[in-house]
Amino acid sequence: MKSTQQPNPRTKSRPKSRPKKPRVMPASSISPSTLKPVGVLGGGQLARLLALKGYDLGVKTAIFSEHRDDPAAQVSPLWHRGRLTETAALQRFLKSCSIVTFESEFVDAERLQSLATETKTPIHPKPSTIGLIQDRLSQKQLLARHQLPTAQFHNVETPDEARWAHMTMGGAKIVFKRRRFGYDGYGTFVVNDGRGLERFIRAELAPGKNPYGFIAERFVPFQRELAVMVARSTHGQTVVLPFVESKQVDSRCLWVKGPVKPEPRFLNLAQTLVQKLVQMLHDLDYCGIMGVELFDDGSELLINELAPRVHNTGHYSLNALNMDQFTIHLKCILGLNLSQPKVLDGGFAMLNLLGSSTRPAKLTSPDDIALHWYGKSENRPGRKMGHITALANSPEAALSRLLRARRRFEV
Amino acid sequence: MKSTQQPNPRTKSRPKSRPKKPRVMPASSISPSTLKPVGVLGGGQLARLLALKGYDLGVKTAIFSEHRDDPAAQVSPLWHRGRLTETAALQRFLKSCSIVTFESEFVDAERLQSLATETKTPIHPKPSTIGLIQDRLSQKQLLARHQLPTAQFHNVETPDEARWAHMTMGGAKIVFKRRRFGYDGYGTFVVNDGRGLERFIRAELAPGKNPYGFIAERFVPFQRELAVMVARSTHGQTVVLPFVESKQVDSRCLWVKGPVKPEPRFLNLAQTLVQKLVQMLHDLDYCGIMGVELFDDGSELLINELAPRVHNTGHYSLNALNMDQFTIHLKCILGLNLSQPKVLDGGFAMLNLLGSSTRPAKLTSPDDIALHWYGKSENRPGRKMGHITALANSPEAALSRLLRARRRFEV
Repeated sequence: MKSTQQPNPRTKSRPKSRPKKPRVMPASSISPSTLKPVGVLGGGQLARLLALKGYDLGVKTAIFSEHRDDPAAQVSPLWHRGRLTETAALQRFLKSCSIVTFESEFVDAERLQSLATETKTPIHPKPSTIGLIQDRLSQKQLLARHQLPTAQFHNVETPDEARWAHMTMGGAKIVFKRRRFGYDGYGTFVVNDGRGLERFIRAELAPGKNPYGFIAERFVPFQRELAVMVARSTHGQTVVLPFVESKQVDSRCLWVKGPVKPEPRFLNLAQTLVQKLVQMLHDLDYCGIMGVELFDDGSELLINELAPRVHNTGHYSLNALNMDQFTIHLKCILGLNLSQPKVLDGGFAMLNLLGSSTRPAKLTSPDDIALHWYGKSENRPGRKMGHITALANSPEAALSRLLRARRRFEV
Repeated sequence: MKSTQQPNPRTKSRPKSRPKKPRVMPASSISPSTLKPVGVLGGGQLARLLALKGYDLGVKTAIFSEHRDDPAAQVSPLWHRGRLTETAALQRFLKSCSIVTFESEFVDAERLQSLATETKTPIHPKPSTIGLIQDRLSQKQLLARHQLPTAQFHNVETPDEARWAHMTMGGAKIVFKRRRFGYDGYGTFVVNDGRGLERFIRAELAPGKNPYGFIAERFVPFQRELAVMVARSTHGQTVVLPFVESKQVDSRCLWVKGPVKPEPRFLNLAQTLVQKLVQMLHDLDYCGIMGVELFDDGSELLINELAPRVHNTGHYSLNALNMDQFTIHLKCILGLNLSQPKVLDGGFAMLNLLGSSTRPAKLTSPDDIALHWYGKSENRPGRKMGHITALANSPEAALSRLLRARRRFEV
């Protein structure tokens, strides 16, 4: 008889095939004069833009970062010097805040969880979720549990596991990705054939070199890369931002344009995907915004990776929607009411201003575009120094305006 | 012979009837890493919003104000404590800045001019222009020199001058306005008849009571109040924002909606007015944005007053245009290229969140509106605590959304 069976711990946490009823509670309010600051771990551009948008909501943002001239520290008098490895400094910081969030998922999730419990300061999204997502293996398993499409993968720690993965994926082009701390192409290795595989094994799988190991992923011959932001509040409300196309050069986002044209094949796939993503947010009791990067291979939409935070591919929202991703994230973690954002024109585009030298940047002000400069102290080749956005009657028209405008910036 | 006549000093500065050719030079660029901060005199909401928008342009803003918890001081680590009457503190502040601007025209223009010369720090708009505009009498004379329509007025310093003004304006309803330091209805006295006139004389024209005197103005039986922002850069470029209708309650702006419908009578008047305003900016060599408040009496558009700075009736631009008044002002004083702003929907509205008690405010997040909270430390009846903005397909639809949303804020 089924009812007498012990639950299988491996399947217990899997979602049932019918969607769980999401927990939706009434949204709350905030009192700016008594609310303690919202803390952000990290001092880069994402933290800076969170702080700037927080002010309009009546929220003071405290910044935890290493240097006084970090982009976010420049815009907040509530700056706390510290590293993410300094427990005492983190503890003091958490105590001074009402809620804490972060701009990078590369944090020590367990340490943060115990500090959150100890200081009774909620961290959103939850450290346990950050833990799941910061490791590419558990992230892939999370996607699989929610029937979210993603490229075929193997866990790889040893040379033989690497060879096995290569063989079972047909001996063709595969990608090794470090399980942790990979970003902007750092920690990603494309292997084209058997010789490339052995080179990779010698260089990266030497004993002690990569303690966290890799995942091996079938190379996806994509036609385009897409991205979408999804968000859920502490009260269970969810919103989905428009799908955008993103262009990566040297594994770094160069531009984003949108909204993606809703032709029938795409629309079907996108609807199913969003439904499953939203269900995943409910199942995780996720609070905050999440970036989702996708491959479109012409037949399927495959999830490339999740980012449990505000994301570069969502920057367009600062000018192209009636509600930006930073405000949405703050509303989510504060439990404020969300409303579905709207696109303000037929199309939009966002172009990253990547450094091309170490000379100080020179900014002009081309017509009809919006600039967001991050205030980084040094210009460096490839470094994200700022971004520009344009609205137009189509995504293509917006992008070409930006590409023309780009020539007028010396970055 | 005309050529041998001495120029008349009173007419020399008057514009010729044909427009002067404006001085337009190529726009420049800025280097964020070497640019000294832009200084703002004042720490209120206008300074705060200038600082927040400055960051996106790559500009750090230094704030000169009295209290650490002033709205603008909360968003900038570059806060200088000081009063506008403290010459030494002002001097130190000016020395630390690349350019200085201000959020209120009630400054000592002469003192600022000599400090600007001494420290070689430009102040925009120029103190001499601030001096002209901060005094209602010289402001009226400025308007008259540019054939800009405004209500009939008299200079009033003595009881007999007050009686004379009342009589020559037909003995009907007139308005006395203090020549300096009047705002939000403070310093404005409406006189309906002879008895009211004598009451006003006894109360306000007692010897030594009002050293700067008054202007007496014919009361304009307006059908609606309008406003428009005009701006000119250090390079002579100009832009004009949309005309809006504003609603004043107890002499305080309650809401603004726009753009004003371009029916033929209005369009004609508005075009002529804008032409003259732009000519005035060129003649003054004005740098920055200017708020212009207007009465529409059904046949004419009369200028009520000028504000040589960002202005409450321009706050809608933060969400309703592709370029906001704060960014435009900063671009003007930095000499960056301007482009004509565009409205992002069929209509927009802005509603001030005025305090109604001294209880701490509670902020919710109604659907589809944008909030800008100023972070003032105390809620007070009538105090401007923040504002909300909405976009819709018409100004009326946007305004009714705001009026509904207002009920959900406890301010």
